[in-house]
Amino acid sequence: MVKVDEFSNSGLLHVQAANWMREKVYSHEWAPDEQIPTEHELMDILQMSRGTVRRAIQALVDENLLTQIRGKGTFVTKTVFTHPTGSTLISFAESLKSQGVDFSTKVVLHEVVPADKLIAAKLFVPVGTPTLKMNRVRSVDGKPILYIESLINLSLFPGLENVNFDTETLFATIERMFGKKIGHSNARYAARVAGERARYLDVPEQSPVLHLEQQIFLTDNSSAEWSNVWLSANNYVVGTVLQRV
Amino acid sequence: MVKVDEFSNSGLLHVQAANWMREKVYSHEWAPDEQIPTEHELMDILQMSRGTVRRAIQALVDENLLTQIRGKGTFVTKTVFTHPTGSTLISFAESLKSQGVDFSTKVVLHEVVPADKLIAAKLFVPVGTPTLKMNRVRSVDGKPILYIESLINLSLFPGLENVNFDTETLFATIERMFGKKIGHSNARYAARVAGERARYLDVPEQSPVLHLEQQIFLTDNSSAEWSNVWLSANNYVVGTVLQRV
Repeated sequence: MVKVDEFSNSGLLHVQAANWMREKVYSHEWAPDEQIPTEHELMDILQMSRGTVRRAIQALVDENLLTQIRGKGTFVTKTVFTHPTGSTLISFAESLKSQGVDFSTKVVLHEVVPADKLIAAKLFVPVGTPTLKMNRVRSVDGKPILYIESLINLSLFPGLENVNFDTETLFATIERMFGKKIGHSNARYAARVAGERARYLDVPEQSPVLHLEQQIFLTDNSSAEWSNVWLSANNYVVGTVLQRV
Repeated sequence: MVKVDEFSNSGLLHVQAANWMREKVYSHEWAPDEQIPTEHELMDILQMSRGTVRRAIQALVDENLLTQIRGKGTFVTKTVFTHPTGSTLISFAESLKSQGVDFSTKVVLHEVVPADKLIAAKLFVPVGTPTLKMNRVRSVDGKPILYIESLINLSLFPGLENVNFDTETLFATIERMFGKKIGHSNARYAARVAGERARYLDVPEQSPVLHLEQQIFLTDNSSAEWSNVWLSANNYVVGTVLQRV
């Protein structure tokens, strides 16, 4: 049985149970890929009803901290993909490929729009510059893991709007088809609530997601792309190795 | 008035209102530091009651996307702190100082423990090695922005447990007081639900937080620290500039 002081102050039992289980995962006491106690065992440990335990487990499944496998039980989700940063600039497509992961891409929005004030400021181009507004969902084993909202400076890549990005990737298209060299990126990471993007990542609206806002520049410092990337929580982590000076 | 198809499928009105407002912020239509429409204006725009509008605003205040200033109105929260990664390894204390930000630190847990299996594996030391388990809350203007859980390999720094970390920072202590050189870090970022850590960051338990798990090595590759850092969402972003090859 759990000592009372292990519980937080939250009044609701299922929230207390979820907090207790989340703590087991965050503290690594329940390790990735490990099977957690059964519902019956949890009912015993927590002295709570089956309904309460189930509701708490569902909350952690929604956060992607736990994974239920039919006929096997409930397991701590193991993070599958790591996107390296802190070394050199590679795209998500490239980092997935380098990890030997097969992915599929679905273009869910694709339209040529003149840059409004915001887009112009983010892309460092005059208002009215033609841009490709393209949103893509990238999935592994049918499960969406990335939602990418791109705005691409078409004045650098005339005709890029005719490329089929269900099958082509952006960096490869820019470098191989247009012969341009990608130079550097400027990126910011933050934790967010999924909200409307939840529908593309197939997660509940209240789920935490990792948000990456990124500007991509060519070697001549012209601005190629402004993108907002939303990464399904705990499915994707961003890894980095940094040297001290 | 808002067109119906701008709303998501969520049934609850206050959730629909929160989604609509979150979208305004995520899309930059409501820019950082900008005042959002008044409650009355939102009631008109959304054709919803004051109670519903207030509940939606509160949800976004809880996510730290909006900030209410008494007597002035509601504003889009501007992210204040950026922690650089992708260049060289600097600590959060160092990045705050380099941005000219005054912070205070409160040690909330401080105990010497022998490394258990998990700590031993994370610090690459034998089980039983003395470690300092120290949790710190770092605040700016009285507002907590970082919660740092450290496990420090005391076999490298005998006596470090006697340092007052309410006033000293870890990297400076290691480098100046112990004359050791910090070499590199290995870090992973993920978006999480705050859960129990909410109490230290003074946010609701369901808030998204940025979680950084980090291992710090000396120049001789000995392992100095394993830390888990929790960053208050939208208060703190991690920024990076990366070069292509």
